[in-house]
Amino acid sequence: MRPILKTTTLSMADAEAEIRRSLSEQGFGVLTEIDVAATLLTKLGIERDPMKILGACNPTFAHRALELDERVSLMLPCNVVVSASNGTTTIRAVDPRDLMPSGEFDELTTEVAHRLQTAVDAVPAG
Amino acid sequence: MRPILKTTTLSMADAEAEIRRSLSEQGFGVLTEIDVAATLLTKLGIERDPMKILGACNPTFAHRALELDERVSLMLPCNVVVSASNGTTTIRAVDPRDLMPSGEFDELTTEVAHRLQTAVDAVPAG
Repeated sequence: MRPILKTTTLSMADAEAEIRRSLSEQGFGVLTEIDVAATLLTKLGIERDPMKILGACNPTFAHRALELDERVSLMLPCNVVVSASNGTTTIRAVDPRDLMPSGEFDELTTEVAHRLQTAVDAVPAG
Repeated sequence: MRPILKTTTLSMADAEAEIRRSLSEQGFGVLTEIDVAATLLTKLGIERDPMKILGACNPTFAHRALELDERVSLMLPCNVVVSASNGTTTIRAVDPRDLMPSGEFDELTTEVAHRLQTAVDAVPAG
């Protein structure tokens, strides 16, 4: 795992708003959202630092990938995780090159990784 | 990619109901849902065969995995995909051993893969 990563002094809420905006500029919609901390508190009664998993999807690239191999659906959407600990907020995006075998997907995964990197880089450091 | 797979003559809706029930019996809740066909139709105007991505999560295993390495969040939840084509409905679950590097996660990924396999196997063939 080699996440696409940025840390910031923005709050969780502000960092989430920034990454949603920059993902949108790169053509990604956020299709799903999991509040990990709230889920673990509800299901297990365990308290942990805030963490949200956003499921980002660029429909054009998703369609092209599914046309190559329908099993790509097992790897969609691309996770973008916002978490906070000790006053620092971290934004991590999955690198799609970690998810797919090398070969026919290389052009697509490289382009998607570049766009995710651009979106994460666009979040202000503070 | 070596998906955990079953085909059935059940309709999409019936197969989805069955897999949701059997996932629940294995301790997985469905936290997210993406209607891929509807999304591609809305966003791109492209018609394709029905496909839904369910995001399944067993909170106990998710918590244990996150305690080992927070970057696991990039791989959560486990996708379970229901799709239909030419009168056959297919259910695929991701094999978590495909997502994580070998090593400290082996015991967890083996157990989660076993439970996903059990859930998929429990869906009637028709």
